[in-house]
Amino acid sequence: MTEARPDFHFDLHARSGRARAGVFHTPHGDLLTPVFAPVGTAATVKALTPAHLTELGASLVLSNTYHLYLRPGDELVRELGGLHAFMHWPGPILTDSGGFQVFSLSNTRKIDNDGVTFKSHIDGSAHRFTPEKSIAIQENLGADIIMAFDECPPPLDRAYNRIALDRTHAWAARCLTAKTRPDQALFGIVQGGIFPDLREESARYLTELNFPGYAIGGLAVGESKAQMHATLEVVEPLLPADKPRYLMGVGSPEDLVNGVLRGVDIFDCVLPTRLARNGAALTRAGRLNMKNAPYARDPRPVEAGCTCYCCTHFTRAYIRHLIIAEEILAATLLTLHNVHLLLTLMREMRAAILNNTFADYAENFLANYKPQVAKSPTPTSTP
Amino acid sequence: MTEARPDFHFDLHARSGRARAGVFHTPHGDLLTPVFAPVGTAATVKALTPAHLTELGASLVLSNTYHLYLRPGDELVRELGGLHAFMHWPGPILTDSGGFQVFSLSNTRKIDNDGVTFKSHIDGSAHRFTPEKSIAIQENLGADIIMAFDECPPPLDRAYNRIALDRTHAWAARCLTAKTRPDQALFGIVQGGIFPDLREESARYLTELNFPGYAIGGLAVGESKAQMHATLEVVEPLLPADKPRYLMGVGSPEDLVNGVLRGVDIFDCVLPTRLARNGAALTRAGRLNMKNAPYARDPRPVEAGCTCYCCTHFTRAYIRHLIIAEEILAATLLTLHNVHLLLTLMREMRAAILNNTFADYAENFLANYKPQVAKSPTPTSTP
Repeated sequence: MTEARPDFHFDLHARSGRARAGVFHTPHGDLLTPVFAPVGTAATVKALTPAHLTELGASLVLSNTYHLYLRPGDELVRELGGLHAFMHWPGPILTDSGGFQVFSLSNTRKIDNDGVTFKSHIDGSAHRFTPEKSIAIQENLGADIIMAFDECPPPLDRAYNRIALDRTHAWAARCLTAKTRPDQALFGIVQGGIFPDLREESARYLTELNFPGYAIGGLAVGESKAQMHATLEVVEPLLPADKPRYLMGVGSPEDLVNGVLRGVDIFDCVLPTRLARNGAALTRAGRLNMKNAPYARDPRPVEAGCTCYCCTHFTRAYIRHLIIAEEILAATLLTLHNVHLLLTLMREMRAAILNNTFADYAENFLANYKPQVAKSPTPTSTP
Repeated sequence: MTEARPDFHFDLHARSGRARAGVFHTPHGDLLTPVFAPVGTAATVKALTPAHLTELGASLVLSNTYHLYLRPGDELVRELGGLHAFMHWPGPILTDSGGFQVFSLSNTRKIDNDGVTFKSHIDGSAHRFTPEKSIAIQENLGADIIMAFDECPPPLDRAYNRIALDRTHAWAARCLTAKTRPDQALFGIVQGGIFPDLREESARYLTELNFPGYAIGGLAVGESKAQMHATLEVVEPLLPADKPRYLMGVGSPEDLVNGVLRGVDIFDCVLPTRLARNGAALTRAGRLNMKNAPYARDPRPVEAGCTCYCCTHFTRAYIRHLIIAEEILAATLLTLHNVHLLLTLMREMRAAILNNTFADYAENFLANYKPQVAKSPTPTSTP
């Protein structure tokens, strides 16, 4: 075991190719990396209790600054002892900066070089985020890892990425200056879309500011998988080896394996929890829509061999019944399964890295996994 | 400990006034009475896992024949091993007869002396229940306690109760004849509204048929509390002391105490689970609407001194936040609390009966409890 060091030090234990196994020390416990963070947008990982998260072996939970600022309000969370106490999660928490959500309100927000004015999606009220405001909110929330306020532009638009990158860099420096709490690690976010020169510029600029960790932002928002992988391969060698790297918003099983293959240490995504509430199960072979009629009389578990509470206690027929009857338990059981799968994959990947067998592990996994069919039409083989 | 006797024998251990403490032996375990059964309408106690029910110390769970017949279908439940296996509840289960739900479809059902024709609330399809059909469905479901198919008329309508009672009695005899499984106990249901002579007639008729347990039906459906209590006082002495008595559909804290005071052994009600999903908490002092604004910054637990998972881990402010944000966890935590309270009250009442201190217990409880204000206007004190 590693000695407790709640100082945001990152110990790199092993490499297997570019894949890394390490430990990131936080005030609320050690993160064994690579790690996947389930998302608790509004201070709850939807459909689970904190006791469920502990049973699942979750270590890091992400929560959203934009949502908590609007409701119940970051001042209220602070009054009640901060986010850990409020949601009763004793382990490490990461909050995003609020930027991603605010920029996605594309019809109601206005960006200037100082910050962003936007309207609440709840009641239409007007609000303004600046780098300083984002840090102040995140300090009220009190997560272990907090994020620089950045702009996440469309990844294929070079001209816009050029403009946004300067803003993101200026804001990163302002966040560092604004930050006051020593018990929070502020991560910088590398932007630059799919453009290697912009990514390189961003990585170099942010590295000089000496953050305790670096996120790779602006991916999984419209580019192809090949473009995502190429961008990770550009950025990874530019980041300091002794700091954790966080790929934001990524969390399908194949993306996790491909990310770890390319040196990523931390991931988060709403995918396992959102799919569960929509009646879909993640498995090592691909996704299952549990609403489908063939499951109505299926006595098998959702995924054969899975050791989660859902798969060791219930049949596909029961899960489908719960979905059709719109029972809350459907969401809970599928969320338990989906999160269990992703956390298990992370633990398996860590073990494979420590054994230096990760290349085989990744190859085997990806050979057996059938990714979700892309929404865009697949080109036919005829010219 | 009582020796395991899965034979539907009822051992009466103690009396305290009319209140009784006993054990009812079923194939899936002993029921320590008095007992409250949470309701799992569609083969799930809404918002809880079976593991939660075990943690809460639940022993008996009720499920609904009408709902399971329509969806997923009783044949399918039988194929998958019966209701215990399907919903993974290892303890005793009780199913109702389907009659109450069918009769409540007042616009689409037609009653004759042989049975009831009705339309599904899901898709409008036509169906027919008879005593024999209800028993066949309940045998497919496989609960430990099953109920006779009866008619539950408006409790204040004497003329209609007179007609319905003859039908209920004829149907009770047909249910006994139709029943084939030796591992299920069929309970008869005493009807007769608020009319002592009809209740007496019903109790005498059904007692002669020698059921292993008796329900008191037709209460908590429109009569006053005083009328409910008076009816219980009429029926109780007429029922054999060596058989359990089940008051159907009753489950507010004050009604449980008042029922036990009048010799009832088994209760069920959707109240704790339904209130929870509507954001209301049951407490020993009365109900709390957790949505109310004063709870927004309240750092106290839902109920001081409560040992449930909700009250030992979360604040009223957090619960209110979850309700306002429409998070599933609100329903789960409040359901845990409400069911915990009712199950704890049952355990306390059993202990008080065994100590022969139940009269004091009931008096103290009722003196401190503020029942929900009735929906009908309260008479003013001026004439």
